[in-house]
Amino acid sequence: MVSKNQIKLITSLQHKKYRNEHQLFIAEGVKVIQELLQSNIVLEHLFETESIFESVLPSQKTLIKEVDMKRISVLTSPSSCLAIFKIPKAKIIEDKGLIVVLDDIRDPGNLGTIIRLCDWFGVKQLVCSKETVDVYNPKVIQATMGSITRVNLVYLDIQDFIAQTSLPVFGTFMDGKNIYKEVLPTEGVLIFGNEANGISTSVEKIIKNRIAIPRFGDIQQTESLNVATATAICLSEFRRNF
Amino acid sequence: MVSKNQIKLITSLQHKKYRNEHQLFIAEGVKVIQELLQSNIVLEHLFETESIFESVLPSQKTLIKEVDMKRISVLTSPSSCLAIFKIPKAKIIEDKGLIVVLDDIRDPGNLGTIIRLCDWFGVKQLVCSKETVDVYNPKVIQATMGSITRVNLVYLDIQDFIAQTSLPVFGTFMDGKNIYKEVLPTEGVLIFGNEANGISTSVEKIIKNRIAIPRFGDIQQTESLNVATATAICLSEFRRNF
Repeated sequence: MVSKNQIKLITSLQHKKYRNEHQLFIAEGVKVIQELLQSNIVLEHLFETESIFESVLPSQKTLIKEVDMKRISVLTSPSSCLAIFKIPKAKIIEDKGLIVVLDDIRDPGNLGTIIRLCDWFGVKQLVCSKETVDVYNPKVIQATMGSITRVNLVYLDIQDFIAQTSLPVFGTFMDGKNIYKEVLPTEGVLIFGNEANGISTSVEKIIKNRIAIPRFGDIQQTESLNVATATAICLSEFRRNF
Repeated sequence: MVSKNQIKLITSLQHKKYRNEHQLFIAEGVKVIQELLQSNIVLEHLFETESIFESVLPSQKTLIKEVDMKRISVLTSPSSCLAIFKIPKAKIIEDKGLIVVLDDIRDPGNLGTIIRLCDWFGVKQLVCSKETVDVYNPKVIQATMGSITRVNLVYLDIQDFIAQTSLPVFGTFMDGKNIYKEVLPTEGVLIFGNEANGISTSVEKIIKNRIAIPRFGDIQQTESLNVATATAICLSEFRRNF
């Protein structure tokens, strides 16, 4: 069974303040927990409604009832497992390869999808502005499907980061150069902006390479692409000639 | 003010059964309603908490209080406007151009994002299997951001549709040919499968061109791309040489 203190701890971890205080986060679902267990991320405790992860030491897991799982889960349809993990220490960003930078992404689903895309396209480093949604938000962890274990994600002042990188810096803008016609480098920094406002003005000023995904529909249409789909298209373009 | 009968009608339209019965759907938010008003889709009635759409006839709109908007809205943070529109009659799919086919997409956000992508990439025709989520689901309408007005979406038996098309038929599979190395046609049918199960076996059997988006990360990673990001990458590839 789950103690009152455990319930209190687990539900508190839905909030960034308490995740930071305890340096813990929660993950739910077989797939995500499996990927985290196979990574360097350290398990604090596992709760299961049936025995799934036999490799986990008995002292580190508790078999609970479905009714208790419902009390600790953040999901509307709880899975058979929920685990608490220690937040790993961020590694220093190395000035090499393709690096994705997110300027104030607010939607947990978008951040999760972008982490999966980085993983798919072999992007090992992801820099987020300090206003970007917390990667240890349960919704982000669910959306990453375990990809977070293969991408080093760091929260930094992105103006400082761009100022000190020796790599070419790219940003997507409506008036940028046609990405399909540019010769894209194998290494570089690729910046994506906030869902509603795009890349912030202060960051835009220091971006040297302005690129755009051309629109093929009617001229009257004014809508932009969702940031996760724009990231998919840009990463595909940077990688397709490898 | 909003009458009891109006509240009953509007809340019933959250369900497919009642949308079909009344042949009506709801849209919320200035951007979406604006796009719908500018299209051929016919307004039934508009509710506003302040006067926004001056071109709408007084007989077709009602000024309501924020507290009433909260009662009729499906959003957690209601907008200043909600409108009821008539479901337009589906147009026949013409056997030309690039046509996207969805085999049992269940997530409203994914369908909405794919409609936006079709609009961006000039894909005018979208065929959905009968099990695909209803396009007039309020969550889909929100996610399309008005793009639905520029894409003809039809629900069909997709096996029947594929059997009678003269266009080349493409589907994405893990073991397909590298999409970056294929010469892609300007016209064709492009099929995407269900979020969990991919393209169904019965549909897979009749697909002649199996393509794949190559993975660039570690071999150990097993995760697939989200269907909306896979659609983004494929449409970008089919359009990039135009």
